[in-house]
Amino acid sequence: MIPELRYDEKGLIPAIIQDVNNNEVFMLAYMDRTALEKTIKTGKTHFWSRSRQKYWMKGETSGNVQLVREILYDCDKDTLLIKIEQIGFGACHTGNKTCFYRSIKTEEVE
Amino acid sequence: MIPELRYDEKGLIPAIIQDVNNNEVFMLAYMDRTALEKTIKTGKTHFWSRSRQKYWMKGETSGNVQLVREILYDCDKDTLLIKIEQIGFGACHTGNKTCFYRSIKTEEVE
Repeated sequence: MIPELRYDEKGLIPAIIQDVNNNEVFMLAYMDRTALEKTIKTGKTHFWSRSRQKYWMKGETSGNVQLVREILYDCDKDTLLIKIEQIGFGACHTGNKTCFYRSIKTEEVE
Repeated sequence: MIPELRYDEKGLIPAIIQDVNNNEVFMLAYMDRTALEKTIKTGKTHFWSRSRQKYWMKGETSGNVQLVREILYDCDKDTLLIKIEQIGFGACHTGNKTCFYRSIKTEEVE
């Protein structure tokens, strides 16, 4: 069911989390094979926390879980793109809808 | 100009590349500080190739360059989200528009 993915030397693969409705990118987090299996089995995103060295389910404390709609992988098989339905106000622990709420350089879109 | 970002132990930070027009995610690649500076200076995406151990500009051989419209960073300062205008047919060397053209699990969107 799961294709042969290319995990890094720590056994991790980055997963981009994207709103299935409007394609907004909410966050990036890391999975190992077990986290990916938990994600597929439960239909809710699970990750490996590099800082806490443990598994976590998005929304396990906040309630802002992410319902999985589609799991894609890239040409190199070393990145996941997961389209989700975000429950609650958003994905970021700061209270922002997306973790990408700050800009280095902003130009007008032509 | 560039905020204090958190590069990994190899000096790299993942950069998600997204279509500024419809938010489609095209690819993920890695930058170090120099690649980010090149990207800002030229307005075209530059990356560090982990496999070839060299800098590369997206489209340097194909002509399918990416014109930078906005550079965002996340709450943890360890991921970039770069909104671009894609020149040419798309971003993937396989001929697909996006590198994420294969799905592990597809469910109907409710």
